[in-house]
Amino acid sequence: MAQDEQHDPRPGVVKVAVWQFHPTPRDPDTNLARLRAVAEEARHQGAALLVTPELTLTGYDVGELDGLTRDDDVDRVAAVARDVGIALVVGLALAAPPDHGPHHGPHHVNASVVVDRDGTVRATHRKAHLFGDLDRSRFTPGSEPFAMTELDGIRVATMICYDVEFAEGVRAAALVGAQLLAVPTANMRPFEIVCEQVVPVRAWENQIAIAYANHCGREGETHYVGRSVVVGPDGRPLAVAGPDDEQLVVADVDLGAVADAQRANPYLTDRRPELYEDLVTPRPPRRSTPSDTDME
Amino acid sequence: MAQDEQHDPRPGVVKVAVWQFHPTPRDPDTNLARLRAVAEEARHQGAALLVTPELTLTGYDVGELDGLTRDDDVDRVAAVARDVGIALVVGLALAAPPDHGPHHGPHHVNASVVVDRDGTVRATHRKAHLFGDLDRSRFTPGSEPFAMTELDGIRVATMICYDVEFAEGVRAAALVGAQLLAVPTANMRPFEIVCEQVVPVRAWENQIAIAYANHCGREGETHYVGRSVVVGPDGRPLAVAGPDDEQLVVADVDLGAVADAQRANPYLTDRRPELYEDLVTPRPPRRSTPSDTDME
Repeated sequence: MAQDEQHDPRPGVVKVAVWQFHPTPRDPDTNLARLRAVAEEARHQGAALLVTPELTLTGYDVGELDGLTRDDDVDRVAAVARDVGIALVVGLALAAPPDHGPHHGPHHVNASVVVDRDGTVRATHRKAHLFGDLDRSRFTPGSEPFAMTELDGIRVATMICYDVEFAEGVRAAALVGAQLLAVPTANMRPFEIVCEQVVPVRAWENQIAIAYANHCGREGETHYVGRSVVVGPDGRPLAVAGPDDEQLVVADVDLGAVADAQRANPYLTDRRPELYEDLVTPRPPRRSTPSDTDME
Repeated sequence: MAQDEQHDPRPGVVKVAVWQFHPTPRDPDTNLARLRAVAEEARHQGAALLVTPELTLTGYDVGELDGLTRDDDVDRVAAVARDVGIALVVGLALAAPPDHGPHHGPHHVNASVVVDRDGTVRATHRKAHLFGDLDRSRFTPGSEPFAMTELDGIRVATMICYDVEFAEGVRAAALVGAQLLAVPTANMRPFEIVCEQVVPVRAWENQIAIAYANHCGREGETHYVGRSVVVGPDGRPLAVAGPDDEQLVVADVDLGAVADAQRANPYLTDRRPELYEDLVTPRPPRRSTPSDTDME
């Protein structure tokens, strides 16, 4: 991205923008117009990449999505990227593949789409870890823990909201070389700890930068917690949004710091995969039961 | 533990003590005498379990351990538990098994020993993730990510210091039902983030209580960061020690809260083990190199 003088001129530094916002519920046209305006603002501030929240075009806790999605939604997002000249990672609902299993389940997948600044779709992730009834009633889960692509020499992975709360998937992305993880999210009360501690620890333990773009405000009983954040590969927040209001935050992500963090905290080489077989064994966990708390 | 009136009388609640201290370097007799005195104090405060730092008997960054360990070190620790009537999780060096591999490596293992209040050794963990030259020059690594036993109906797992920084091992312990993880540690500057964020997130993401017992003060160039902590299964610190001084911290760990946390944050059942195969593939991770930061 450094070849373009409008981008950050420092080699190995990527200016990343995160858009914290409150979509107009069930109004994709309005939200798409707002995306375009914010992409222009981010571009004006020198950002090479803009990350938006989960289900940017429709809102998240807005009920059934049938009739709210269009076959050309991705094309419309790609047009914003191409027209403005900025790469985008956008959360949006897509129609589920027609062969998505014998259960004839929900009609949509909860997706994150990576589009480069020329408007080419480079990667699509389908939320793999579904969160409660809100997700399960509406979405078919994806079958990969993340998606990854390369944008101007930077390996950008993406996953969605609840996905990042599972250490396993983020580790898998880091092991194949992800340098920046872009996470559209819709994180609500009482899960402030995810913004404030879990996401920074995911960055720290994997030496990976993370851009986490959240909703703010309310949708019905769902009160989003804002606190969108860009975290460096040393686990330190580079830019943080407030809890309540819409905000565009921009931070310089230094890829040299990824290599520095790998030298300082060599978890990726010190880990011992031969000891972790139980992590891939498909058996139910042993849960605490009331009898477990009986004292002898 | 509730049957004994000197223990906490509330059903399902375990009073856990964590000893943050500065061992006298290379002086096991003195440190053992101090362990006995602190165990009595912890018992006096009603604790059923006391967790001590890594290499409690010798100190951690104290050079070669040959001549500092005795064959009866575990017996001496067990005698403290039996005499005082308190369960102990103690970090100490043990002689490595004579058949510990073809390399005739270091003579010791870095161990955590779980002893019940009758003085019976219930579990022994050997540090599996070795930290830098300090560990590698002196210790043969263990071959399990944790050890676990049951103390009065509570499933107590143990691992050591750097082990807990790997999400994989803590997850494995939680999947087989660990409720409390006891971690002897020797965490130093600049790794305050481990005490303040990584350990709480390990508790949160696994719905497990953690008792993390650290050194304080200095050994040569190594400046320990204190900040020993007992964290509840909701990720909230229940008791925290300061950064600099010796301290005995005591907290009530509520096993009912473990079950509550599992209901509130069902990561253990929502995880998708079939997606994590790459975590157990023994291949080197892809590292960032200087060329990775070259822009096209």
